[in-house]
Amino acid sequence: MGIVTPQTARFDEPLKLVCGRELPSYELVYETYGTLNKQHSNAVLICHALSGNHHAAGFHGPEDKKAGWWDECIGPGKPIDTDRFFVVSLNNLGGCHGSTGPSSINPATGKTWGPDFPPMRTTDWVHSQARLADLLEIDCWAAVIGGSLGGMQAMRWSLEFPERIQHCIVIAAALKLSAQNLAFNEVARQAIEADPEFVGGGYQDSNTIPAQGLALARMIGHITYLSDDAMANKFGRDLRSGSLNRGETADAEFQVQSYLRHQGSQFSSNFDANTYILMTRALDYFDLALEYDGNAVEAFKQSQSSFFVVSFSTDWRFSPQRSREIVNALIEADRPVSYAEIEANEGHDAFLLPIPRYLDVFHAYMLRVGASD
Amino acid sequence: MGIVTPQTARFDEPLKLVCGRELPSYELVYETYGTLNKQHSNAVLICHALSGNHHAAGFHGPEDKKAGWWDECIGPGKPIDTDRFFVVSLNNLGGCHGSTGPSSINPATGKTWGPDFPPMRTTDWVHSQARLADLLEIDCWAAVIGGSLGGMQAMRWSLEFPERIQHCIVIAAALKLSAQNLAFNEVARQAIEADPEFVGGGYQDSNTIPAQGLALARMIGHITYLSDDAMANKFGRDLRSGSLNRGETADAEFQVQSYLRHQGSQFSSNFDANTYILMTRALDYFDLALEYDGNAVEAFKQSQSSFFVVSFSTDWRFSPQRSREIVNALIEADRPVSYAEIEANEGHDAFLLPIPRYLDVFHAYMLRVGASD
Repeated sequence: MGIVTPQTARFDEPLKLVCGRELPSYELVYETYGTLNKQHSNAVLICHALSGNHHAAGFHGPEDKKAGWWDECIGPGKPIDTDRFFVVSLNNLGGCHGSTGPSSINPATGKTWGPDFPPMRTTDWVHSQARLADLLEIDCWAAVIGGSLGGMQAMRWSLEFPERIQHCIVIAAALKLSAQNLAFNEVARQAIEADPEFVGGGYQDSNTIPAQGLALARMIGHITYLSDDAMANKFGRDLRSGSLNRGETADAEFQVQSYLRHQGSQFSSNFDANTYILMTRALDYFDLALEYDGNAVEAFKQSQSSFFVVSFSTDWRFSPQRSREIVNALIEADRPVSYAEIEANEGHDAFLLPIPRYLDVFHAYMLRVGASD
Repeated sequence: MGIVTPQTARFDEPLKLVCGRELPSYELVYETYGTLNKQHSNAVLICHALSGNHHAAGFHGPEDKKAGWWDECIGPGKPIDTDRFFVVSLNNLGGCHGSTGPSSINPATGKTWGPDFPPMRTTDWVHSQARLADLLEIDCWAAVIGGSLGGMQAMRWSLEFPERIQHCIVIAAALKLSAQNLAFNEVARQAIEADPEFVGGGYQDSNTIPAQGLALARMIGHITYLSDDAMANKFGRDLRSGSLNRGETADAEFQVQSYLRHQGSQFSSNFDANTYILMTRALDYFDLALEYDGNAVEAFKQSQSSFFVVSFSTDWRFSPQRSREIVNALIEADRPVSYAEIEANEGHDAFLLPIPRYLDVFHAYMLRVGASD
């Protein structure tokens, strides 16, 4: 994608939220890749996952070594082909990468929102994103695409604005979190809240950073993103130094331990703790069929989209079984749906990785998108 | 079992440890159930798991509401039948329920050992337990039995003292931890170490208790003891109060969250943080075949025991696959082995629960133990 520049859109009309509160105004930071066609019919929306942001592809400057988080899938000739599509990728409301969130100033107090920032639901994100679509003069997305929490947003889009989304692409997601998913999120939040530097979420006011708690939360999450096999292949029981043989007093350290610590501390220097809590809560609360008496079939009957659902064989966070629940409900609701279960060793993380079969089927499906326009 | 009374054995001969250090003296707290026969041939040793202790069966007094942790399996007519066997159950060295451990006084300093207590390996436990066997005049155990970390100790017994163990019963265990197992233990330890009240392990000296960190560690562990299915059946997405419907500002709380919090806080008031760290390290370091060039078959060739290996279908901490690795190595090493894979919904915790098929096959195997004496 080359070098890309984030832009910021400001919305001054209050946004009513699911929780009952409203945001008086908000900003969304976003990037675009490719060119919007004359008919404005080739726009694709990317929805990010728990810890994602607007920077999905390309680089921010000539010195930038790290491409956007979905650079494997977005670009010329890639599944989301920027020679064909105008791709919009934004940072969700409540995020910590430029969009209005807990680190922003609350206009009512002149102080950072912190823990008082209203809780977000996927529905709120969809409505905030619809205003961005209006601004960009996109009446109907050729596709809304996301992995994990992003896939949940894509499904929500298809219910909230059926007429504004042609294709809905749902990767490594689920209709709702399981008790085990909820449990991991709960422990992650508690790790943050137990950090004395969290100060009940008011760490910005007290000039502290709950880095240890956030690192712990990330480590817990990270274990669930990788498959048992992937971890075994990557680290096994390899030691960082020393040996486990008898006669050694010093504690041995396994590679997997230092890897996790590194992941944790990297993350905690780039992410905001209140946003992490907000995002995990949005995940917890997501339940696509809740307003349809728990009936996903009835929910999907609201949709007018075609669906593409993808899962990965070793994903135990949102396993193929969870994707098959989506597919079965779509079939019963008479929605057009394609499904691919990809053999991959990498667990949940696979949706971000250049797995040939995954890129191939994704690419093949995207050839259908906009083909009839 | 009725009412049982713990006893304490003191050993004043120094114990050389795998780490190279030695304990000048130590105490082990233990309980016994049933009666030792004249030939001293009906003794069974129970090895406890990560957070276990010596109190495996019966009650400590008429007011005691909670039976020992393996009361389902130990007692008259139960699989480990106290009408037939003399059962010995002890608290491991390094524990926090009466045996010498980090909370004990270091005779060299007159202060609690705290984090300076030497690291323990399963081999150290086996050697410390052999002295208890000597004291009780038990030359050879009819069986050494354990689940999880206890199963690892049982296997270690069969290598360290082949002539002193007739039957080795290994339930829900593994030859060594996987990278994922190591990762969960690492995060649990970090949760403890990040608690400011841990004070580098010196919390006893500073009159603090790292209760939050220990609770977090337990919650992380607890998730891995339950299967996804078991959690789904037990809690699903049930709410403690309120609803997830639109228009509600307060955070909803799922049942699974309050359950985990309760488990965590219960545990942290009954367990010692330094012991938890020590026990998870012993788990991490356990690698049955390490001293046999990583060859489990060569390791098991040292053994003279008959083996009974049990796994549970939904155990993802030590899955049936890990038990089959044990069984396959035993077969190749020409050791007699029986194997049962129990269909159970309860995950790793199943080894503590009264699952009929499990109790039946366990009972049936135990009828073989000592039958020829």
